[in-house]
Amino acid sequence: MAQTIFRTATRADVPAILDLLTNDDIARSRDSAPGRSASGQTGVSEEADAACWAAFEAIDADPRNELIVADEAGAVVGTCQLTFVPSLSRRGAERMIIEAVRVRDDLRGRGVGRAMMLWALDRARERGCGLAQLTTDKRRTDAHRFYAALGFEPSHEGFKLSL
Amino acid sequence: MAQTIFRTATRADVPAILDLLTNDDIARSRDSAPGRSASGQTGVSEEADAACWAAFEAIDADPRNELIVADEAGAVVGTCQLTFVPSLSRRGAERMIIEAVRVRDDLRGRGVGRAMMLWALDRARERGCGLAQLTTDKRRTDAHRFYAALGFEPSHEGFKLSL
Repeated sequence: MAQTIFRTATRADVPAILDLLTNDDIARSRDSAPGRSASGQTGVSEEADAACWAAFEAIDADPRNELIVADEAGAVVGTCQLTFVPSLSRRGAERMIIEAVRVRDDLRGRGVGRAMMLWALDRARERGCGLAQLTTDKRRTDAHRFYAALGFEPSHEGFKLSL
Repeated sequence: MAQTIFRTATRADVPAILDLLTNDDIARSRDSAPGRSASGQTGVSEEADAACWAAFEAIDADPRNELIVADEAGAVVGTCQLTFVPSLSRRGAERMIIEAVRVRDDLRGRGVGRAMMLWALDRARERGCGLAQLTTDKRRTDAHRFYAALGFEPSHEGFKLSL
């Protein structure tokens, strides 16, 4: 694959990240909003747009949240969000929660996702985390194989409740 | 049940919270450390003790983390940790992650856990969260029924990797 770098997202990356998040059958089945937000494009409510920008600013300002992009020659080809949670369990070690992992669909199977996850696990070790965890929809069987190959154990049941 | 109040934990609650976290077969099978930490008791390394106090201070200072206790007449009878994660997914809504849910074992089945979860879900709604989520060990079949009865859907596979 081309040289890929992993870095913290900037405001300029937000439209590309939203494209990655929404270009997904399962996400589409879950969200009622069409297409991207926070981009000023038609079809997106101003309210959703403002909420996405506010979320970006909140993540950007929070030392325990990192929005990451995989960048190939200036193009955003992957993303994930890392949240570092302090915890009294497991001898007081911080845990890293990984959410919103996506790779551009025309680039899958080339190792971008694997390289991004290995990079994220290095970030966690660098911070002294004792544990990395994530949940993935039960329908994403390819993702299950992907995480198992990275050494993750499907030891937990993941419960969600829409509010 | 007796009058139960739910509140943010103080330093004075930490030993009781650690007792709840460690008095659990699955947690014991996972952690190598015996008994409670952060209490100055014998059998606990000073390193683990310091890490637990540091974790408490980190949670206490973080506006996106809340360590909660269920308090009956001054006794800690339950605990959970709430983490509010800003997110670009799901139209920019914050999500609440619930971790480390425990109820004192001699008080189970009296509704303390259910009342604590309903209280936590109200906290999430108050903050405008779009989603509440948690993972629970696949061996905790009682917990699976408990969360399903609260309306949670076991839609996700929960992966963990020790670092």
